[in-house]
Amino acid sequence: MKLAPVLAQIDADLPAALERLSDLLRIPSISTDPAYQDQCDQAADWLVEDLKSLGVDASKRVTTGHPMVVGHVGDSGPHILFYGHYDVQPVDPLDLWDRDPFDPVIEDTPKGKVIRARGSSDDKGQLMTFIEACRAWKAAHGALPCRITFFFEGEEESGSPSLVPFMQENAAELTCDIALICDTGLFESAVPAITTQLRGLVSEEFTISGPDRDLHSGMYGGIAINPIRVMSKVIAGLHDETGRITLPGFYDGVQELSEEIRSQWQGLAFDHASYLDDVGLSDPAGEQDRTPLEMIWSRPTCEVNGIWGGYTGDGFKTVLPSQAHCKLSFRLVGKQDPDAIHEAFVKFLKDSLPADCTVEFTGKKDGAPASQMSTSLPAFEQARQALSDEWPRPAAYIGCGGSIPIAGYFKEILGMDAMLIGFGKDDDQIHSPNEKYDLESFHKGTRSWARILDALSRG
Amino acid sequence: MKLAPVLAQIDADLPAALERLSDLLRIPSISTDPAYQDQCDQAADWLVEDLKSLGVDASKRVTTGHPMVVGHVGDSGPHILFYGHYDVQPVDPLDLWDRDPFDPVIEDTPKGKVIRARGSSDDKGQLMTFIEACRAWKAAHGALPCRITFFFEGEEESGSPSLVPFMQENAAELTCDIALICDTGLFESAVPAITTQLRGLVSEEFTISGPDRDLHSGMYGGIAINPIRVMSKVIAGLHDETGRITLPGFYDGVQELSEEIRSQWQGLAFDHASYLDDVGLSDPAGEQDRTPLEMIWSRPTCEVNGIWGGYTGDGFKTVLPSQAHCKLSFRLVGKQDPDAIHEAFVKFLKDSLPADCTVEFTGKKDGAPASQMSTSLPAFEQARQALSDEWPRPAAYIGCGGSIPIAGYFKEILGMDAMLIGFGKDDDQIHSPNEKYDLESFHKGTRSWARILDALSRG
Repeated sequence: MKLAPVLAQIDADLPAALERLSDLLRIPSISTDPAYQDQCDQAADWLVEDLKSLGVDASKRVTTGHPMVVGHVGDSGPHILFYGHYDVQPVDPLDLWDRDPFDPVIEDTPKGKVIRARGSSDDKGQLMTFIEACRAWKAAHGALPCRITFFFEGEEESGSPSLVPFMQENAAELTCDIALICDTGLFESAVPAITTQLRGLVSEEFTISGPDRDLHSGMYGGIAINPIRVMSKVIAGLHDETGRITLPGFYDGVQELSEEIRSQWQGLAFDHASYLDDVGLSDPAGEQDRTPLEMIWSRPTCEVNGIWGGYTGDGFKTVLPSQAHCKLSFRLVGKQDPDAIHEAFVKFLKDSLPADCTVEFTGKKDGAPASQMSTSLPAFEQARQALSDEWPRPAAYIGCGGSIPIAGYFKEILGMDAMLIGFGKDDDQIHSPNEKYDLESFHKGTRSWARILDALSRG
Repeated sequence: MKLAPVLAQIDADLPAALERLSDLLRIPSISTDPAYQDQCDQAADWLVEDLKSLGVDASKRVTTGHPMVVGHVGDSGPHILFYGHYDVQPVDPLDLWDRDPFDPVIEDTPKGKVIRARGSSDDKGQLMTFIEACRAWKAAHGALPCRITFFFEGEEESGSPSLVPFMQENAAELTCDIALICDTGLFESAVPAITTQLRGLVSEEFTISGPDRDLHSGMYGGIAINPIRVMSKVIAGLHDETGRITLPGFYDGVQELSEEIRSQWQGLAFDHASYLDDVGLSDPAGEQDRTPLEMIWSRPTCEVNGIWGGYTGDGFKTVLPSQAHCKLSFRLVGKQDPDAIHEAFVKFLKDSLPADCTVEFTGKKDGAPASQMSTSLPAFEQARQALSDEWPRPAAYIGCGGSIPIAGYFKEILGMDAMLIGFGKDDDQIHSPNEKYDLESFHKGTRSWARILDALSRG
C-alpha cells in the first residue's frame, strides 16, 4: 500500500503547502492587463523553480503572449498530462475587496477556514493541489508513481490566444495517455465531481442603424424607423413562447440525454431552489419542458449580454436614435456547430430588418463547440472511485454550463481524452471581489490527486 | 410707413446682431444637467441685461429650478407676450460634433451661410430674432410699436417643471392680448408657417430587474431570467404589425382630420421623400394607412429614446445582467389624456413581467396634452399676411409633431391664445450634434417679427 504514507505526508505538510500557495498568490499575474506582463512572467518562473525542486525537467516557453510552463518527469507507467493556469482575473472594483487581493490571508468563516486572495480558487489554489500531491509522492517514495507532463498557461483569463498554436507546434511533446484539468468545482460541499460535459460558446456584437443621425422624436417620431424598436423586435423574436430559440437549424446536433446520464443527474437531487435563491430568483426561466439541470448543463441558450442606444444620461432627451447596439452569445451543447449557428443568426438578423435599417457585425471570434467526455474509459471510473474514497459522499459525473475550450483542444489537437476534476465551490467568488478557496478544498483536493495518481498508476 | 426704416435698421445691424447671438450661444446653458446650473443662471442674466438695454423693465425671477426672465415695455397699443427659452439640449455624443458646441462660428455651406452651435436654432437664435426686431424698432423710432411682455424660461429642454406654478403665481402680470412663441419652423425654405397644432408628450423611464447581481451566463444562462430579453419583449409588444400602438385605450381621444385641414395639408404638397432622405431614410415607417404628414403631425407615437443594460464596454463579458433600463415617450394628439396613457403603459408593463422580474419607474413627469389653435382670431390672418410679405411664398397654417406645452398653458392658465411662428429648418439638427441656424432664418426671421409687430399694432 503506497498511498498511506503519501496521505500522511500531505497532512503533515499542509502548513508549508499553504505557505507555498501564498507565495504564488502574492504575484499579481493579471493576464488581460499589459501592465502586469512582468508579474505573469514572474509567476511562470516561480512554477518552473517549484517543479524543478520536485525533479521535474521544467522550462518556461515563450509565446507571442504570456509564457507557457512545460515540465516532464518519470519514465514508466501511464503518461498523464496535468493542466492548470497561473494567470488571474483583474481585481476591479477594488473598493469591494475587504483587503489587498494579492496579500493572501487564512480566515475563519462560519463554514470553515478559507484562504482569501485573487486566484486562490481560480486557478492557483487548484493548480497547487496537484503539485502538492506530487511533492508528497516524491517525499514519501522518492519518485512519482507514473510519467507526468505539467502544462500551465498564463492566458486563460484573456481568451488563451497562444494556446492552440502552442499545442499544434508542440503536439508530440504534449501528447499523453490522458489529460487532467483542475479548473472546475465540487458538485456540493461533500460531493466531488468529474465534469464530463461543457457547453460551447459563440458570441457576436452588432449595431443596427436607421437614420443617419439622432433625430428629434417630435419631428420624426411616427415617420422615421427607430433602431431600438427594431432591435427589440429582433431580440424578442429569438425565443418563442416556450423558451425555445427560433433560429432555423439551431437545434441541429442537440442531443437528448442518454438514459444513463438522465438517471445519474436525477440521483444528484440538484437543489435548484437554493441555486436560484442565492441570486434573488425563484423560477427556472428556461425551456418549459426541461429540468433545471438540463437548462444549465445540456440545453443551448441565447443570452443578451449587453445593450445600449439612444440617450442614456440623466434626465430626458426626446431623441429618436440613429443606432442600437447589442452584445449577445449562444451557449452550445452536443454537436452544435458554432459557425453554422453564427451564420443562421446573421441571416436571421438581416432577414428581420425593415427597409431603411442596416446591421453591422463587429464582435465575431472563433466559437468553441461543446465538449463531451466519454466516461467509458477506465480512467474515469478509477478516478471516480479515488474521489469517492476521499470525500464523505460518492463522486458524481456532472455537466457544466460554462465553456472550458481546453478540454476540446486536447481531443481535437492531441487526440487525448481529458478529465475535469476540481474542488472549487459555488461561493468561491471567482472573477469577483473577495475570492477565496476553502482549506478543505485545498487539503482534500491534494489528497484526492494523491489517490487519483495512485489509482491511475495501478490501472 | 413706420416699417421701412425698421427693416433697413435690421439689415444694417445684422453683423452686430450675430455678435450678440454668438455671445449668448457661448453660454452652455444645459438645463437637464445639474453641472450647468450656473451657466443657466448666466444666460438669464445676459438676457436681463440685453432687455434692459432696450429700455425694458426686465428681471430674473427665482424658481425652484432655473430662473425665469420677465420684462415689460410700452404703455399703449395691443399687449403682446413673447415667449422663448434660453436653455439648450445636452451635447452628447460630443465626438460627433465637428467643433466645440459652445464656440459658435459662421460657416459657408452649399445651401448658404449658417451659424453653428448648440442652441443656435433651438431656441437662442429664434428668441433673438424677436429681440433684434424690437431693437430695430427702438433704434428707428425710439420706442416699440405696442406693449410687450417678454417671458423666457430656462427649463424647456428639461420638461419645464417650474413653468406652470410660475404662470399660476404671476397670472395677472403675464396675461396679455395674445402670445407669440418662437420655437417652431418654416414649412419649407421659402414657405413661412404658423403652427396651429402641436403634439403632446408623456414620458417615463423604467428599470426591469431580475437576478440580484450580474451573473455568469455559463453558470446561470438558461435557468435565470434575463431582464434585457424581458425588456425587449415589452418594447416589441408595444406596436402591432401595422404600426399601431397596442396599449388598451391608447387611441381614445384621437380625432380624424377635418376635411378643411385635410385639404389644406394636401395643398402643402409635403415632400416626404426629401424629408426622409435628409436623414438617410426612404420609407415612411408609421401606421400603414396614414399619409406621411399625418404620421408626424396628427398621429400619436410611442418611441424608445434610450436603452442600456449589461456589459457595454470593449470586448466581451459573458454576463447575464441583473437589470435593463429604458427611456420611452409617447407623442399625443387630439384629446388624448397623458395621465390615462401613462397609467395604461404602467399597467401594460407590470402585466408583461414574468415571475422573478420587478419594474421600477423613475422618470414620470407631468405630461402635456396636444394643442390646437383657433385660426379664426384676426391676429392669425394679420401675422400670416406679414409673413407672406417677407418670404418668397405665402405663409401656411401647419401642424407640428413636436410638443410645446407652453401654448396649451397660455390658453388654460392665462386664457390667452398663442401664435407659434418660427424660422427653423428641418435640417437644423436641433437636439443633435452640429446644430445650426441659417443666417437667412435669423435675418428674415428678425424682419418677419418687425412686420408682425407692425401689423398687430395697426390692428
